[in-house]
Amino acid sequence: MITALAGGVGAARLLRGLVRIVPRTEVTAVVNTGDDTVLHGLTICPDLDTVTYTLAGMNDDERGWGLAGETWTAMEALERLGGESWFRLGDKDLATHLYRTQRLADGAPLSEVTREITAAVGIGARLLPMSDDPVRTRLTLVDGPEIAFQEYFVRRQHSVAVASVRFAGADTCRAAPGVLDALADGDVIVICPSNPVVSIGPLLAVPGIADALRQRRSRVVAVSPIVAGAALKGPADRLMAELGVAPTVVGVAQMYAEVAGTLVIDDADAALADDVEALGLHCIVAPTVMKSVADAERLSTTVLDAVSGHVA
Amino acid sequence: MITALAGGVGAARLLRGLVRIVPRTEVTAVVNTGDDTVLHGLTICPDLDTVTYTLAGMNDDERGWGLAGETWTAMEALERLGGESWFRLGDKDLATHLYRTQRLADGAPLSEVTREITAAVGIGARLLPMSDDPVRTRLTLVDGPEIAFQEYFVRRQHSVAVASVRFAGADTCRAAPGVLDALADGDVIVICPSNPVVSIGPLLAVPGIADALRQRRSRVVAVSPIVAGAALKGPADRLMAELGVAPTVVGVAQMYAEVAGTLVIDDADAALADDVEALGLHCIVAPTVMKSVADAERLSTTVLDAVSGHVA
Repeated sequence: MITALAGGVGAARLLRGLVRIVPRTEVTAVVNTGDDTVLHGLTICPDLDTVTYTLAGMNDDERGWGLAGETWTAMEALERLGGESWFRLGDKDLATHLYRTQRLADGAPLSEVTREITAAVGIGARLLPMSDDPVRTRLTLVDGPEIAFQEYFVRRQHSVAVASVRFAGADTCRAAPGVLDALADGDVIVICPSNPVVSIGPLLAVPGIADALRQRRSRVVAVSPIVAGAALKGPADRLMAELGVAPTVVGVAQMYAEVAGTLVIDDADAALADDVEALGLHCIVAPTVMKSVADAERLSTTVLDAVSGHVA
Repeated sequence: MITALAGGVGAARLLRGLVRIVPRTEVTAVVNTGDDTVLHGLTICPDLDTVTYTLAGMNDDERGWGLAGETWTAMEALERLGGESWFRLGDKDLATHLYRTQRLADGAPLSEVTREITAAVGIGARLLPMSDDPVRTRLTLVDGPEIAFQEYFVRRQHSVAVASVRFAGADTCRAAPGVLDALADGDVIVICPSNPVVSIGPLLAVPGIADALRQRRSRVVAVSPIVAGAALKGPADRLMAELGVAPTVVGVAQMYAEVAGTLVIDDADAALADDVEALGLHCIVAPTVMKSVADAERLSTTVLDAVSGHVA
């Protein structure tokens, strides 16, 4: 059994490789829901959907988010009405949010709704939201108010300086059914190459998850989302720097030292391997940039081998 | 100033004729909201939208509801997810519901949201929901439970026998801003050829509306939606019969006798004109079936002439 902590695109890419070398039924991804939002009355779970669409082979690889063959009829009509359209909801994608919102209104917990959606599109693997309770990532700007995650990430295109981040609701939420068991049972626990601050951060803030990782630290392998001092995608590097952490693999190692026994860093950062190991993590240097499914498969093998070599 | 009480398609057709002979700025339609529903988290106002789309020239005349050039990408995707798709929401139409739901969540009352939508699509005339407070038409079936209007109308395609109808929330709701003034100020008040039970019924149940009509009864002209003992569209005839009212123009006259001074009936019902007049209504016999905009324009002229002739 392989259990992964997952954010959005980077995680989805790694998982797409992982399910090529491990039977899908043996893979559980515990997914960040701190990005979730309600827009136009619809409950939107960007990370769950990104992982779902990618594992179902429905994602748009070129655009990097959303569904392949997507159309934008509703958004265009919404713009003509003067509605807020900064968060782009494609016509096909809307169906996911309509379905989820209806089921949540029916009283189904998010984990059950996620099970239904992933079964309907056929991803094979198991996806668990980190919690059925709402947790909302909120960011206080250096010169401004506290704003919701999507306001920061999409509307302002993460081009504003952040003073602090919090995960509202995390301290009182409960891990979704199956989450802590999946962490206890995982032969390998993967921290995907997602944003350590706003993708993995909320996961670690859910009561019980960080403890579960600490207890099984030797089986926890993190993949650095920072390569050569920069995030491959998104604001992880800037956020880390703004919050006082070096935006390097060493900074990533500092953030994960308590919960992960191994950090996989890119060849480009080989010179920093000793600094990572000095923080008490086993360090593996390998190609980590996933441009193709083959890249993702190779990186997945690296991750799994890390534990069998390390634990055995 | 012309004020109309309006349901959905029949009302929209008449109004489309009316705005050809009266400046749009002099027309106010007070629209039934008893059909409104929340589906997939979205607030849907079918009658408001039908009138809006029709007056904006955006409606699909052939299908008889919804928008011209509509696409169904979201619905098809929702069906693949196993979601409820009996209430067909087109991609363009979805934008209206997304917009409305967001604005209501922002705290805007429905009358303000309606003003925004009708201004954005440019209908010229003024549309008022009958109330900013939720009123919900509910029907108790002869052999079954009480169900919501759209469950009856769309999901079961009004093919079940109804024992009773009520308008939940009507007794405590307030007429939306402008409604009672529009009734007090209207030179002519038109009761559109909508379902007397479930379209006009909710309007008359809003506190103040029926009283306002009674006070200006000589200026109130109703158009019968029943022609030759049958509804032109929908279940008005069956509903009337089930509730103990003859499904004829005489039955319509009975339902409207207190609030309308004039009833326009179709040529096909000319033989019943005396029976209508015996109930105390002035009866006008004219072509009432609107197959074209020209038909609607002619019927509108009939309606307006009824009052100028009657009141003068």
